[in-house]
Amino acid sequence: MKYEIGQSAEFSKTIAECDVYAFAGITGDFNPLHTNEEKAGRMYFGKRIVHGMLTASFLSTVIAGSMPGPGTIYMEQDAKFLRPVFFGDTITARVTIAELLEKGRARLTTVVTNQDGVVVVDGTALVKLPKED
Amino acid sequence: MKYEIGQSAEFSKTIAECDVYAFAGITGDFNPLHTNEEKAGRMYFGKRIVHGMLTASFLSTVIAGSMPGPGTIYMEQDAKFLRPVFFGDTITARVTIAELLEKGRARLTTVVTNQDGVVVVDGTALVKLPKED
Repeated sequence: MKYEIGQSAEFSKTIAECDVYAFAGITGDFNPLHTNEEKAGRMYFGKRIVHGMLTASFLSTVIAGSMPGPGTIYMEQDAKFLRPVFFGDTITARVTIAELLEKGRARLTTVVTNQDGVVVVDGTALVKLPKED
Repeated sequence: MKYEIGQSAEFSKTIAECDVYAFAGITGDFNPLHTNEEKAGRMYFGKRIVHGMLTASFLSTVIAGSMPGPGTIYMEQDAKFLRPVFFGDTITARVTIAELLEKGRARLTTVVTNQDGVVVVDGTALVKLPKED
């Protein structure tokens, strides 16, 4: 595959309570904001929200799976957590090639939106592209 | 709690195969590098490795749980994936207050090391600190 600026791919998923709870179990991040409806109800967002790093992880899914895809070496990711993601929200992670750099590297724009098209996570990634066939 | 530059906390965990497989199931990232020993064995690292975003997620665990701790608003995270993490590695995520900024914000240094003290993920985070008591 020949890589060009503007190529992009996406991955969508409805994030369920079980995703958030499994992620809490793996990471040990049981912040009440994510796993305690009573406390979360009295905090900023009024109910439990998804871990920001879980939402951002779907960017990695796109990078590894489809754009640039298998063989990519993931070097850097930055993420701004702009809006909360709630249980049951359907998010779409989109990755686009923004710059082709020397040494086979590329800068990607990485954006996650919710079902209303609102950007919830914005950022960029740096990767080493797979060898072109 | 009064926040000061240099305050830090950490979280350690041995990352097991089940962690990586559960994370793959949640995120849909079944890159063979993480979940196919046969293919991973013929790739760069010679065996399956942990998803970079999973390793980086332990930084969020520290930020939410202990430094700065409950009430922190997580605004940004950047992460450089410097070295592979293998199944069975014991990682330590350490978060340190690096700068106190206006509007109650802080810049944190966020580093994950393995059992040999090698830095596997390096980065920074931007947070809004909890209100001081």
